[in-house]
Amino acid sequence: MDGFTERDVVRYDGRTRHAVIDRVATEAPFEMRIGSTPIAVLMRTPGMELELATGFCLTEGILLHPDEIVGIEQLDGDRFVLHLAEGVTVDPEQFRRNTYTTSSCGVCGKASIDAVRVASRPLPDGPRIDQATVVALVSRLREVQHIFDATGGLHGAALVDPEGEVLASAEDVGRHNAVDKAIGARARVGWPLGEVILVISGRISFEIAQKAAVAGIPIVIGVSAASSLAVELADEVGLTVAGFVRDGGFVVYAGESRIVD
Amino acid sequence: MDGFTERDVVRYDGRTRHAVIDRVATEAPFEMRIGSTPIAVLMRTPGMELELATGFCLTEGILLHPDEIVGIEQLDGDRFVLHLAEGVTVDPEQFRRNTYTTSSCGVCGKASIDAVRVASRPLPDGPRIDQATVVALVSRLREVQHIFDATGGLHGAALVDPEGEVLASAEDVGRHNAVDKAIGARARVGWPLGEVILVISGRISFEIAQKAAVAGIPIVIGVSAASSLAVELADEVGLTVAGFVRDGGFVVYAGESRIVD
Repeated sequence: MDGFTERDVVRYDGRTRHAVIDRVATEAPFEMRIGSTPIAVLMRTPGMELELATGFCLTEGILLHPDEIVGIEQLDGDRFVLHLAEGVTVDPEQFRRNTYTTSSCGVCGKASIDAVRVASRPLPDGPRIDQATVVALVSRLREVQHIFDATGGLHGAALVDPEGEVLASAEDVGRHNAVDKAIGARARVGWPLGEVILVISGRISFEIAQKAAVAGIPIVIGVSAASSLAVELADEVGLTVAGFVRDGGFVVYAGESRIVD
Repeated sequence: MDGFTERDVVRYDGRTRHAVIDRVATEAPFEMRIGSTPIAVLMRTPGMELELATGFCLTEGILLHPDEIVGIEQLDGDRFVLHLAEGVTVDPEQFRRNTYTTSSCGVCGKASIDAVRVASRPLPDGPRIDQATVVALVSRLREVQHIFDATGGLHGAALVDPEGEVLASAEDVGRHNAVDKAIGARARVGWPLGEVILVISGRISFEIAQKAAVAGIPIVIGVSAASSLAVELADEVGLTVAGFVRDGGFVVYAGESRIVD
């Protein structure tokens, strides 16, 4: 089955650790072009490329009818060109006006990872965090999720010190925004954030890992799973990524040396 | 407390319905400008604007140090201009190269909603869906989430008919991509999708509601909550939005007439 990637991870279960093979959701960039013009780069799970391009172009108002797209062709790893029906033309300015930005990324995953390595400073060796604190951080995050308590509809992010004390926290409908708000709040106190641990309520995607790395944050802990590209980036820049914190245990996807007993 | 909006909703609890006031997470656009150049529009929860701008600019590599931003000024409802420290200049091309697009939206929420009303066709009166089917749809979605079963790290979207039969489904690390893939797959069979119901594993944000409306889909059902702007859009275009499907009950945020006993 497509859609996931097998990775060597370390599973902590109470106080013991086991090296196991885990499946992480595959995340990879997808650049869509019309002619030679890139119209969008999405971070997505590979598969159903024609369907994704068709749905995206229709629901974003770039195309008006599914018959306007007749096929898709892979140029190289992450770049695809759409084949439009004869006579269909798209004005790049028309959709440029209708698009907005949520995050930065190169044009392909490799370029992005390279760009982060240039832009981000070397991560410090420390801090270390012990297993019990990792487990406790998730309930600490819940304590600061006030809007979530009221609505059930928000992502939370917190920056904590190695003892688990909350230094900054934020909530937002957008996962990236919650992280940016917490980082922005803490940045006023000191920069970069080499002694700080990022805890998030959701999944650890490439973009979350990238934001941490650029901010100099050496440890990211998520309530949910990490994606393949987040783990790949973490390996490259030396970031610690742990997730699936539940039932007193968790999974370390990368950078295990910062997790101590 | 900021961050949520009170809404009149209908709560279904088994077979009875109650009109109640619910709190939904507030979602609103946020345009950041440097000088007169918009650098990004984010859909976000209001509050912590300076922190969000600081964190975003730092983690996206637009600024290198928190001291480079000294303040933020609200121009009008959704537009903010960043005040940079003296001597700090930003080359718009530099960050333009580093940004990518995930979705369409106007420059402000009002503009977006207007744009959808223009771009989307009138939604059909029907179909109707009964309460028991709404409740059953969530387990139907789980049945098609194969990669989620393997990884725990993916969003799922399905298009179903009013009896709950799955017509198309997809999984993706991105919520929007899962929806676009399912819509793109079904669009090949017929367009627009006036007889189809969209079921998603996560939250119903403005962008998800907008994608449904543009595709002509009249009913969106989410496992989790809806945002304020999604509900506002639903009201304007006549879209049915139900969420929080759990324990045999759910909440109808908008368009209740399509839910029958």
